[in-house]
Amino acid sequence: MKCYKIDIEYDGTDFYGWQRQKNDNLRTVQGDIELTLYKIFDKHIKIHGSGRTDRGVHAKGQVASFKVESSIPGNRLKYVMNSFLPDDIYVYNTEEKNIDFHARYNAKGKEYQYLLYISTNRSPLMDRYHGYYKNEVDFELMKRAAKKIVGKHDFRGFMAAGSSINNTIRHIYNLDLEKRQLDDDLVEIKMTINGNGFLYNMVRIIMGTLVDIGTGKKEISIIDEAYKDFDRTILGHTAKANGLYLNKVFYESLDKEIKIEKC
Amino acid sequence: MKCYKIDIEYDGTDFYGWQRQKNDNLRTVQGDIELTLYKIFDKHIKIHGSGRTDRGVHAKGQVASFKVESSIPGNRLKYVMNSFLPDDIYVYNTEEKNIDFHARYNAKGKEYQYLLYISTNRSPLMDRYHGYYKNEVDFELMKRAAKKIVGKHDFRGFMAAGSSINNTIRHIYNLDLEKRQLDDDLVEIKMTINGNGFLYNMVRIIMGTLVDIGTGKKEISIIDEAYKDFDRTILGHTAKANGLYLNKVFYESLDKEIKIEKC
Repeated sequence: MKCYKIDIEYDGTDFYGWQRQKNDNLRTVQGDIELTLYKIFDKHIKIHGSGRTDRGVHAKGQVASFKVESSIPGNRLKYVMNSFLPDDIYVYNTEEKNIDFHARYNAKGKEYQYLLYISTNRSPLMDRYHGYYKNEVDFELMKRAAKKIVGKHDFRGFMAAGSSINNTIRHIYNLDLEKRQLDDDLVEIKMTINGNGFLYNMVRIIMGTLVDIGTGKKEISIIDEAYKDFDRTILGHTAKANGLYLNKVFYESLDKEIKIEKC
Repeated sequence: MKCYKIDIEYDGTDFYGWQRQKNDNLRTVQGDIELTLYKIFDKHIKIHGSGRTDRGVHAKGQVASFKVESSIPGNRLKYVMNSFLPDDIYVYNTEEKNIDFHARYNAKGKEYQYLLYISTNRSPLMDRYHGYYKNEVDFELMKRAAKKIVGKHDFRGFMAAGSSINNTIRHIYNLDLEKRQLDDDLVEIKMTINGNGFLYNMVRIIMGTLVDIGTGKKEISIIDEAYKDFDRTILGHTAKANGLYLNKVFYESLDKEIKIEKC
């Protein structure tokens, strides 16, 4: 029995998210990868992702693990898998791990990226991979608001309504905002955020909140209020799925490397 | 009677090119825009593009013109059109022109862009908008080869086989190559090229030739040979359509602004 770890990039546009659905007609990333493994190993193998990504969310560095009787060396499995996978999924690394490795249970943290563009005009060439906002934002104000997200906080307010989870304290190690002027009337904003874990829709609510603060729709004070009142409704909107990317999954703790600590 | 000029961005992926096909089941950009105009004006209106783009080629700045009895002011037509157009086409500017304006006959030049990425791994997130090459290239050598393209030359060799056209002399004003390291194993190369006109597949043959010179498959001397022998087969491959963008159409001559002149 071998345990494989696989690193996956995918374009989430045409998937109903990562997780296999009861309705097999709904295309999912997990479903397509398990189908590929069925073609290779001639048996049903369940894979474990580091976490789910929602419908339309992309991944540059999703990780999954699974166990199977196999003679294929860890670093060769990649070539076998890619010869069967559809064009919108690519496995760029495969390796053999200790038999008790588990992509979700062993994950120590994650990094996400959110891309958005701001222009008076919608852009068909940007829409697939970016959120879109029509109105100018105060970028310096967004950066000030972003600083309030970093640290260890109870993010219960930054969670999609209806989630049930006990521990909602998460540690955000870093949140970086970059702005690029791509054309006269076209600005791209990139958020890169990492932490020891994220609640359901948390990254998209953070992005939507930063944008709403940047456009003046919301006050910067709502972030501190949400840490006290846990009230989803005072925060900004949930940014669209198609601008979000799961960049990396960390299997070694980042706690020691990064000093920022607020509580 | 009004003559409108419209500026169009589109994602070419799902189109059989610009030009309307006899088979109406084949989706084309021209066909979709004419259908939109039918919905607005309740009659069939033929539009004239600045030129065709091939199947899969994108546009940031395609231009078209058409005449119609209309009360809609030039700068308002945009909003009416976008409310009917599909998501992968967007009209970002509309204006009224002199009645004899014609998007093709009046065009004085064009600018194209080609994007490609180089990595040992294919990337589903790059494939839609980039050509892909696996092998490293000598970027400085590509830049030296690019200099040989600039100027006034007989580009008969840089034309897809089977084209029939009399005058194959074109003036390339500028060819710019940029390289960006996006990740450890991911390089993006951007070519921006403008000139007074381009033959069929000319930009894609130039890009493919520069890449083949950069990877060592072809010698830099083939460019000068092709100017003498007009032999398509000695040049490089035709780069894929999905990395190509029609950036701009010029309606004022660039000849005077740019001094480079070789003959």
